[in-house]
Amino acid sequence: MEDRILIAHGGGGRLSSELISSQILPRFGRGPLRDLPDAATVPYVGAKSIVYTTDSFVIHPVEFPGGNIGNICIYGTVNDISVAGGKPLFLSLGLILEEGLEMSLLEKILDAVKKSADECGIRVVTGDTKVVPKGQCDKIYINTSAIGRPYENFSLGKGRIRKGDKVIASGNIGDHGTAVLCIREGIKIRNGPISDLGTVQKLVKAAHHFKGDVKFMRDPTRGGLAAVLNEIVSGRKYGIMLEEDKIPFSTGAKAVSEMLGLDLLHSPCEGRVIMICSEKAADGIVSKWRKMPEGKNAVIIGTVTDKEGKVIMKTSNGGLRLVDLPRGELLPRIC
Amino acid sequence: MEDRILIAHGGGGRLSSELISSQILPRFGRGPLRDLPDAATVPYVGAKSIVYTTDSFVIHPVEFPGGNIGNICIYGTVNDISVAGGKPLFLSLGLILEEGLEMSLLEKILDAVKKSADECGIRVVTGDTKVVPKGQCDKIYINTSAIGRPYENFSLGKGRIRKGDKVIASGNIGDHGTAVLCIREGIKIRNGPISDLGTVQKLVKAAHHFKGDVKFMRDPTRGGLAAVLNEIVSGRKYGIMLEEDKIPFSTGAKAVSEMLGLDLLHSPCEGRVIMICSEKAADGIVSKWRKMPEGKNAVIIGTVTDKEGKVIMKTSNGGLRLVDLPRGELLPRIC
Repeated sequence: MEDRILIAHGGGGRLSSELISSQILPRFGRGPLRDLPDAATVPYVGAKSIVYTTDSFVIHPVEFPGGNIGNICIYGTVNDISVAGGKPLFLSLGLILEEGLEMSLLEKILDAVKKSADECGIRVVTGDTKVVPKGQCDKIYINTSAIGRPYENFSLGKGRIRKGDKVIASGNIGDHGTAVLCIREGIKIRNGPISDLGTVQKLVKAAHHFKGDVKFMRDPTRGGLAAVLNEIVSGRKYGIMLEEDKIPFSTGAKAVSEMLGLDLLHSPCEGRVIMICSEKAADGIVSKWRKMPEGKNAVIIGTVTDKEGKVIMKTSNGGLRLVDLPRGELLPRIC
Repeated sequence: MEDRILIAHGGGGRLSSELISSQILPRFGRGPLRDLPDAATVPYVGAKSIVYTTDSFVIHPVEFPGGNIGNICIYGTVNDISVAGGKPLFLSLGLILEEGLEMSLLEKILDAVKKSADECGIRVVTGDTKVVPKGQCDKIYINTSAIGRPYENFSLGKGRIRKGDKVIASGNIGDHGTAVLCIREGIKIRNGPISDLGTVQKLVKAAHHFKGDVKFMRDPTRGGLAAVLNEIVSGRKYGIMLEEDKIPFSTGAKAVSEMLGLDLLHSPCEGRVIMICSEKAADGIVSKWRKMPEGKNAVIIGTVTDKEGKVIMKTSNGGLRLVDLPRGELLPRIC
């Protein structure tokens, strides 16, 4: 193990996993944290349970095509509650501000927090504001946590996934990561990518109708689709076969990825759901989602196989490629 | 209003209040945030309610006499739940790590998180880890949020405070702030202050017995005793009269405050309760607390008066002094 923290420890790839496995799980991994869900489901006297999650946002730059850190700190946390099968209710907002931050930028960000929170029907009920000297933060870092109520009929868990189940993406993959990268690196292209950030609440609510046929959901943020799928199969008796031709990418994201030699499977989304569901329900879910604006590009992108712990992709030219976790940090501070 | 964020906006004094009043309350202040409690009490279907809080910790240096940031991120949040009348149950842990942070220091901090969480009987159930490039953080910032269950018999609220009620401090005031300051500024004195950090859960549980006679509780962190008392009387029909001779200070904290010309009323504590209770219950609570190690210096330090919105102190030499919020930032990054 490295004796110092590297940027790649935060990238959602192999080093992130190692850090969590070596430092977090041995200390805190006995309870709900064991499977590292996006959100924990914990018992609460009188009620069935509470869905609970947290996320820190250190995005650079804080504004990008499609929104700013104030939008993403709401959608990111609301989406974590949603894909864990919960209805988001209450949110905490922790701000770390850098000395010298323009008040006008702070106002713009807080306006975005309010707008997104209102859209999601979630209420900011508790908060905290700290200020650190110039050069000890980069404008603003935000932590949000949220409390949600579990939907009654979902029964989500990797243990319910079986060979033959289908993998659905709710929309284009990798737009958020490439949109942030364009603004950060000063890349100007016509019809460039725009962040897909948004709430997935409605998608989850629509899928709720399919009850037990929905096996598992995640939003592919840090580490992108590759990280989510690898996490799903890790240590399991099953694997996943992806079909490259089926995976939806926007023209803008594709252009940027080709220009930079970037793998879009590692590029984060901020408003997508990756779902594993039974084969019989898959077409129904896709067709339901395609009628919704946030799901109009939904598609089945793969199938659960018996290749233990492996994500393999049938490429456009007919070959097979192992889809692995990135080891390094391709996209630091992207969310 | 300033057009940029100043260090003092985070200090718990007048500028902090202005920032919250101008930026947070207009956007989010309609619900539970209105009175800016340390922890929000929100309704939850099936159960009576949930107590919910968050805090970010940006302390410098991360280790100090009495503990490190890993202890304080647990006690601070557990104490916020406790003084709001809740029993802390679940905790979220959000880490922002600086590239280059020594793994051995991270381990020490996480050991402290675990030890304090175990001591408080609270479980870390969800978390998040981000890494930022060197120079965009100072070693480690931690956000914790927590969920607690409200105690049945408490009925806490500033609206229940009446003239004649008593103000109790559970122990020495200002040790945490002066202990951190000593290590930060390289001040070496014999028997110097040691942080008072610790959980106040047992103190709150002991007071629970006095039910409705307990009117309000706070832990005096940022801005110290002066900030908490001013917040209690702000905009109210009552005021507070403090007695300087009664306020308990440790020898170490007194020595440091005299050396630096620092007002201990502005120095944060991390393991104390300031309580407002009825006159008839005050002696009983103090004597109960004094039998406990964490309350051995508990004492009545003041009385609620009819001086609207004012905190006044009867000084040791018999004069009267207005105890105001500090305008500037005396102790940045102390918690």
